[in-house]
Amino acid sequence: MTTAHVFIATSLDGFIARADGDIDWLLQRDDPNEDHGYADFIADKDLIVMGRGTYEKVLTLGPWAYDRPVLVLSKQLAGVAVPQALEGKVRFSGSTPRELMDTLAAQGVQRIYVDGGQLVQSFLRDALVADMVISSVPVLLGSGRRLFGALSGDIDWTLVSSRSFASGLVQSCYRRKA
Amino acid sequence: MTTAHVFIATSLDGFIARADGDIDWLLQRDDPNEDHGYADFIADKDLIVMGRGTYEKVLTLGPWAYDRPVLVLSKQLAGVAVPQALEGKVRFSGSTPRELMDTLAAQGVQRIYVDGGQLVQSFLRDALVADMVISSVPVLLGSGRRLFGALSGDIDWTLVSSRSFASGLVQSCYRRKA
Repeated sequence: MTTAHVFIATSLDGFIARADGDIDWLLQRDDPNEDHGYADFIADKDLIVMGRGTYEKVLTLGPWAYDRPVLVLSKQLAGVAVPQALEGKVRFSGSTPRELMDTLAAQGVQRIYVDGGQLVQSFLRDALVADMVISSVPVLLGSGRRLFGALSGDIDWTLVSSRSFASGLVQSCYRRKA
Repeated sequence: MTTAHVFIATSLDGFIARADGDIDWLLQRDDPNEDHGYADFIADKDLIVMGRGTYEKVLTLGPWAYDRPVLVLSKQLAGVAVPQALEGKVRFSGSTPRELMDTLAAQGVQRIYVDGGQLVQSFLRDALVADMVISSVPVLLGSGRRLFGALSGDIDWTLVSSRSFASGLVQSCYRRKA
């Protein structure tokens, strides 16, 4: 069985980016002296899955920084050739989240990191997220792209842990209730 | 000078009520054995200020539970007589948040509790909120009435404290940066 895991930062009002995708507000408030646990989080993940929006944003941020295989879920990119510089690092797939999870389970992939707002929302709607580490940054933006979206019903979570940092970031880990 | 303070619970996705105003999801998840600090919070507040929506909701919840004077900010209720049972406990005012704060300052009122989503949003937009205690309940609702709304610019906060409870509630206190 493959499980999906989320690790993401949001503003106090639940935005992961401004309306145009800008995340400077987040980068500016990131304290490089604080270890927010990403290395520990990613250590046991086999694969990073992101949507096209996140993939295209990551391409603008400089050199490819991921040391895990990345799969981009996108009907639009499926069938397109991966850029040469990213061969062996990135794959494109047109699967739905549920199809992907079935395929990965058959391949023996155990734990995937689901990144990006739209994709997290899709995985949540399909009840495919096992746990979420949410880091709340102490700023109100007022508008932008939301982490969470519409659902067909309530989803309850168990709080696994919560901690805060000198920068004001509050990081909480939630496991989906069965 | 009068300062305004917020103490409110939200779902993980930032809703304070369902679209129809229902807060059963919140009441059902409230653990009466946990002290979330409301008594301590309210102890040094001189006045509770709420909007009409919150006032009308509170009226449906049973006997009047507030042991502080309540002022309802509402253009619609201003000039209307307060229900007899609430005389001496409730006043109606048609002031804007800023007018109210000036009036209260002139009266020597020091600290007010601002309750209800719409009113909190108004006070935030006018930069009138000194600090907020936000209790995050471990459930995603997917839709409803939001705590936070549009702003004319970013608002930065200093994290004063954060704590979690066995029920999964994470409560963080933020002070507005000067």
